[in-house]
Amino acid sequence: MTIEKLQEIDFEKLDGLVPAVIQDSKTRQVLMLGFMNNQALAMTRETGSVVFFSRSRNRIWLKGESSGHKLNVVSISTDCDRDTLLILVEPIGPGVCHEGYESCFFRTWQDDQWQINSEKVFSPETVYGAKS
Amino acid sequence: MTIEKLQEIDFEKLDGLVPAVIQDSKTRQVLMLGFMNNQALAMTRETGSVVFFSRSRNRIWLKGESSGHKLNVVSISTDCDRDTLLILVEPIGPGVCHEGYESCFFRTWQDDQWQINSEKVFSPETVYGAKS
Repeated sequence: MTIEKLQEIDFEKLDGLVPAVIQDSKTRQVLMLGFMNNQALAMTRETGSVVFFSRSRNRIWLKGESSGHKLNVVSISTDCDRDTLLILVEPIGPGVCHEGYESCFFRTWQDDQWQINSEKVFSPETVYGAKS
Repeated sequence: MTIEKLQEIDFEKLDGLVPAVIQDSKTRQVLMLGFMNNQALAMTRETGSVVFFSRSRNRIWLKGESSGHKLNVVSISTDCDRDTLLILVEPIGPGVCHEGYESCFFRTWQDDQWQINSEKVFSPETVYGAKS
């Protein structure tokens, strides 16, 4: 391991946000991509549980706050340009996707169509409550 | 596999771009994250080689155009919100990072510092030419 002078993440390119790729540390499956601002990254480091900034809700979002499906942080890496994060996690719960799948990337392009490539692992209605 | 009605990727949230996570299909290592616009995605599908839109150069960018380290597409997936891509690839060449590493995510946060977690696999000076 080479120790580098501490340099901060570059939040400037996306107006205060960086993409954070979430990968299962054991299965190596890419589970989702969220965005973090400086505060979300600090909270993720401090709590050991993944915290995003929700663009749609315009607020800090503890992943799993509704579902209980939190993401325990195993490691946090950044890339050459320091404008993207790769976070290895141990997921609490069967899946990260609000539609009930293990990974949010459950659609694959095949035969000129998006096709669902996996089975649901939990019921969104049970976990999040029935839709009104 | 469930076939879905074709729906397009949502390029609106980031002014015409979506993040594209690049993962090695064999090792499952996450190699890099780039951005694609509609044209880059279409070219990626048509050519079978990953094409990004470079934000810094403001133009279409065939990954590997300088280094020869192209990325052969194995599959293209999208997430629940259709605003992110996950592309599994077979890399041509030893590494994707312009700094000489296999993955751009070569720095990991440890002991309150960013530490380099891997060795260079090629010489950037040889591949890209000496810096002027």
